[in-house]
Amino acid sequence: MVKIGLLGCGRIGRMHADILARHPQVTLTSVYDVNAEAAREVAQACDTQVAANAEDIFADGSVDGVLVATATPTHVGFIEQAVAAGKPVLCEKPIDLDLDRVQACAQIIRGSTVPIMLGFNRRFDPGHRAVHKAAHGGDIGEIHQVIITSRDPEMPSHAYMRESGGLFRDMTIHDFDLARYMLGEEPVSVFAVGTALIDPGFGAETGEIDTAMILMQTASSRQCCINNSRRAVYGYDQRVEIHGSKGMLLSDNRRNHEARHHTATATGISEPYEFFFIERYAQAYRAEIDAFIQIIKDKTPSPVGFEDGHRALVLAEAAYKSMKDRSLVMVSEIEK
Amino acid sequence: MVKIGLLGCGRIGRMHADILARHPQVTLTSVYDVNAEAAREVAQACDTQVAANAEDIFADGSVDGVLVATATPTHVGFIEQAVAAGKPVLCEKPIDLDLDRVQACAQIIRGSTVPIMLGFNRRFDPGHRAVHKAAHGGDIGEIHQVIITSRDPEMPSHAYMRESGGLFRDMTIHDFDLARYMLGEEPVSVFAVGTALIDPGFGAETGEIDTAMILMQTASSRQCCINNSRRAVYGYDQRVEIHGSKGMLLSDNRRNHEARHHTATATGISEPYEFFFIERYAQAYRAEIDAFIQIIKDKTPSPVGFEDGHRALVLAEAAYKSMKDRSLVMVSEIEK
Amino acid sequence: MVKIGLLGCGRIGRMHADILARHPQVTLTSVYDVNAEAAREVAQACDTQVAANAEDIFADGSVDGVLVATATPTHVGFIEQAVAAGKPVLCEKPIDLDLDRVQACAQIIRGSTVPIMLGFNRRFDPGHRAVHKAAHGGDIGEIHQVIITSRDPEMPSHAYMRESGGLFRDMTIHDFDLARYMLGEEPVSVFAVGTALIDPGFGAETGEIDTAMILMQTASSRQCCINNSRRAVYGYDQRVEIHGSKGMLLSDNRRNHEARHHTATATGISEPYEFFFIERYAQAYRAEIDAFIQIIKDKTPSPVGFEDGHRALVLAEAAYKSMKDRSLVMVSEIEK
Amino acid sequence: MVKIGLLGCGRIGRMHADILARHPQVTLTSVYDVNAEAAREVAQACDTQVAANAEDIFADGSVDGVLVATATPTHVGFIEQAVAAGKPVLCEKPIDLDLDRVQACAQIIRGSTVPIMLGFNRRFDPGHRAVHKAAHGGDIGEIHQVIITSRDPEMPSHAYMRESGGLFRDMTIHDFDLARYMLGEEPVSVFAVGTALIDPGFGAETGEIDTAMILMQTASSRQCCINNSRRAVYGYDQRVEIHGSKGMLLSDNRRNHEARHHTATATGISEPYEFFFIERYAQAYRAEIDAFIQIIKDKTPSPVGFEDGHRALVLAEAAYKSMKDRSLVMVSEIEK
Repeated sequence: MVKIGLLGCGRIGRMHADILARHPQVTLTSVYDVNAEAAREVAQACDTQVAANAEDIFADGSVDGVLVATATPTHVGFIEQAVAAGKPVLCEKPIDLDLDRVQACAQIIRGSTVPIMLGFNRRFDPGHRAVHKAAHGGDIGEIHQVIITSRDPEMPSHAYMRESGGLFRDMTIHDFDLARYMLGEEPVSVFAVGTALIDPGFGAETGEIDTAMILMQTASSRQCCINNSRRAVYGYDQRVEIHGSKGMLLSDNRRNHEARHHTATATGISEPYEFFFIERYAQAYRAEIDAFIQIIKDKTPSPVGFEDGHRALVLAEAAYKSMKDRSLVMVSEIEK
Repeated sequence: MVKIGLLGCGRIGRMHADILARHPQVTLTSVYDVNAEAAREVAQACDTQVAANAEDIFADGSVDGVLVATATPTHVGFIEQAVAAGKPVLCEKPIDLDLDRVQACAQIIRGSTVPIMLGFNRRFDPGHRAVHKAAHGGDIGEIHQVIITSRDPEMPSHAYMRESGGLFRDMTIHDFDLARYMLGEEPVSVFAVGTALIDPGFGAETGEIDTAMILMQTASSRQCCINNSRRAVYGYDQRVEIHGSKGMLLSDNRRNHEARHHTATATGISEPYEFFFIERYAQAYRAEIDAFIQIIKDKTPSPVGFEDGHRALVLAEAAYKSMKDRSLVMVSEIEK
Repeated sequence: MVKIGLLGCGRIGRMHADILARHPQVTLTSVYDVNAEAAREVAQACDTQVAANAEDIFADGSVDGVLVATATPTHVGFIEQAVAAGKPVLCEKPIDLDLDRVQACAQIIRGSTVPIMLGFNRRFDPGHRAVHKAAHGGDIGEIHQVIITSRDPEMPSHAYMRESGGLFRDMTIHDFDLARYMLGEEPVSVFAVGTALIDPGFGAETGEIDTAMILMQTASSRQCCINNSRRAVYGYDQRVEIHGSKGMLLSDNRRNHEARHHTATATGISEPYEFFFIERYAQAYRAEIDAFIQIIKDKTPSPVGFEDGHRALVLAEAAYKSMKDRSLVMVSEIEK
Repeated sequence: MVKIGLLGCGRIGRMHADILARHPQVTLTSVYDVNAEAAREVAQACDTQVAANAEDIFADGSVDGVLVATATPTHVGFIEQAVAAGKPVLCEKPIDLDLDRVQACAQIIRGSTVPIMLGFNRRFDPGHRAVHKAAHGGDIGEIHQVIITSRDPEMPSHAYMRESGGLFRDMTIHDFDLARYMLGEEPVSVFAVGTALIDPGFGAETGEIDTAMILMQTASSRQCCINNSRRAVYGYDQRVEIHGSKGMLLSDNRRNHEARHHTATATGISEPYEFFFIERYAQAYRAEIDAFIQIIKDKTPSPVGFEDGHRALVLAEAAYKSMKDRSLVMVSEIEK
């Protein structure tokens, strides 16, 4: 059994706790949250113990790896503690909202061989994964275009959005990572537009956007478009399309079941798409944990590491700069 | 140009006249109908002349072939006239509602080499044809099961139904032919159930059924099920499925376009299926005429001939006997 | 926590053990199997104990309910023990292969209020359930036709088939139950054909069939067709269609993901359907356990009880009689 | 009968001739082409006469309208002649490859009430039309995003491409028009990237691109992305998606039939999409003619006029400028 400690017992932490507690190869050794009550609830539901503080988990010699699902500003510190303690870590995205902090952390952990895995769950979705495997296995020849559609089913609260770092750092960050994964090359230029079309009042007050399109190119001129919206009333819309010289691949949306209704006025009527990320990416979250276990057990390299989190944030910064300046931004401008 | 004369200017006759008039390889020489006004209208719309009677068309030396789309009771006589005149004929289904008349006609035309083609249009539908070609080209190995779903979009008038010969002879006749075509073997046994579920009042008065299922087997035990309804409110439902030892083929329904609507309560909302046979089988009717032209020009054998019409009627008779006797009927009982 | 004991640690038993062990509301108290090694393995994987014999589980006052997943011939005895012990029982299908034994058991447990639930898992599939709910909620008006397609992905071993009771009692039993569930009325007549098309050698030796069609009618003339095959090379094919006076409902197949490939020769290429029942009906098996828990906790009536198992077996017997006699069989002939 | 003369008997001219000749409400009075042989062939096939020159058609008092399908550089002159002759004209796209010529023509015809219709056939496609009608009928609330995927099935010849005016003026011109039609507002800014990924050799020689993405915004910040490729090996890929505040609409691709094949390794295998524009947009081309007839007969305003052709070309120019300058281009910069 692989022994894993969990930091963070909020919404996503509880989901991870549930997966870890039910996993046949895992023992969830202990859980921690700044909110002691939240930690207690999770510990009780998952039949494990509450750690008094995060340090105890890193100091526990029996712990094989740590899953970090705490608030974003704490990620960098916990990653550094994990590296210092020599414990493999699976950290939720984003690494941090501040690129300087991320780059400072990169300096600190430089040279370490402790595996760091970033929680870009979509890479582990069976549909997206099949499309990636086919595209990079040569099934569609040279890759020419990647189109990512990513729309949330409903707006988060104003409170959440104020803390989120904004659409590009909070939501599109997944799509930036997915774009890099699917393109197989680094984007070198970014052009972005974004507006508050859903909640213009909040946009006017805060500058926050809710609807965006981003166009990127790689060094070899592969093209990528990301379509984002904070609210698709028909459900969580998650699609990836890759067009190549010898074919096209599509990872389409998924419903909870395949029942369809035909009436006097319409055919093919189906349910809305699965509501949100925990449901839509349930398989992906489990496969992500499997990958983390493999890293711990087999010392395999992390399939999605610190540098991936860094690159995704660089693209988010480039998108903000492009939107602000109303101009094409070279990624190299952002990097240093 | 192939010169074709048309008998019958009702609904289906007008449709054929329209196809013939627009066909780049056809001259529609003349049209006839017992209703002179109907003939005049078609002649005017299609820029052709009205024949004084059917005999004139058969006697016209310039006519290469005759299309018969008159009332069912006249089919047998016109087929016999066509054979006597040595003119290839494309006759609408069914040959006749009375098996004795069909068999008598078979005797009369026995030995003739004049091509006779029956209007089983569905054999010419691109989807059904693709499925047939794949199945009989070996793409799914040995054929085990054929499932035909055939539901009309709405009930015909009571007047029509009183003259129609009943569901099995009027509507299922197409499915009996399609079953033989897809099975690639003759059914040897038939079991049928049928009830008036849509219009029980009319059923009680006339014995007419509107909802039926028929189960058939061939000598080598291939199985076939036909599902019929006189009214599918969601549109004309026309599907063929073939299951074999190495795969499965499906010819699915077709819509007028592929627009889909996603809302807060449903996804994938599409239009009803194309309304009825003239629209749904528009491509098939054109391909049927192409096949008739090829018979005339190239002296190729008829792809669907008199005996096909005869066999379909035998199966209809077997279905009626099975329904009445509530028992399995061997096709050999009906044949002689 | 609801305390459940498990009898049977074979393939399906292990699956249930896994669901029970991970269920947040369940404690798996102990497991038993005639094969002690199998029981030990399951107990270890699920962190529970091995019971020395089945009687210990029924006698254990702390046990709230028993799940029976043992070999079919033991079902009747365990159901009787459960009733005697006053313990709710969830028993795998079929109750027994012998209708006399089932009817004898029915006599013994008559009058008992101990809840008995039969493992007809398909009733709990989200797609099938949605279709049932819509049909019986009036969304398609009066029900006219039900079509059930049920094809296994591959033939079981000869050894399994020799013990299975035959296609109708082993495999179609699920479809007979689903037919009753979807029709909302009892079938009163059955006509069945069946042949060994996939493995004619085994069929010739044993009389066993592998390909079948069954046609049933209810008292109010609702029609139902079941299409069965022991081997669909393209995957486990599980569909339900209900046609009614105001619309049509379809519960279609489900794939593991929605990736599609488009090439120079084909579009829409998808994976085979999910391989087999444990994968395809994973959600259904979990929902079935949820229903069993609800019975235990809330004393709700069993959603699918002993009589449902009995009726499904009666239909299987009627199908065998129909196939053997080559005639329509009234269900009332079988019942008494 | 509406009397229509045709200028141009090349590929698209022949297609129009065929539609006009078969149209029940149209008489094709005469045809003209600089290539007299081409004109003769069309005249013979369509049973009409050859005009000695274009002027004769404009001068013919019996002609109700003229369809212009000649080479692009002649369009402006023929539009001016049509206006001078007071004859409604349906002119193929683009008006011209040179914006100055288009604007000069606009000056010349200013104030005329002669109806001018541009051949943007996609507006008449049943699927695209249904999506437009729903979006602008309020079925999805406020329009937020439009995504147009437009990929040709194969590269045109080098000779064609050298004369074509380039991807944006030749191919994307349709998508620019469709974007305006679907957005319901004028784009005010354009950002475009384009590269020769399919035929880099030709691109290096000529500067011509074959793969492009264009991102546009309207004054009210509606967003639009166009994805173009000169070669989709899986067929002509033509999709429109509109995302709004209350739903999403998709006009998806269409196949020639709905046959699907399921094998041991894949399910859902379908034919490639319909090969090219004449087949894919067959219904649209017929509906376009219907609209032109309505303009002539009922004096209804042109549903897609000269200014639409002008605006599409302005967007093409903006796209070229954006690609060349690697910057966002305001449409107002181009309009001058």
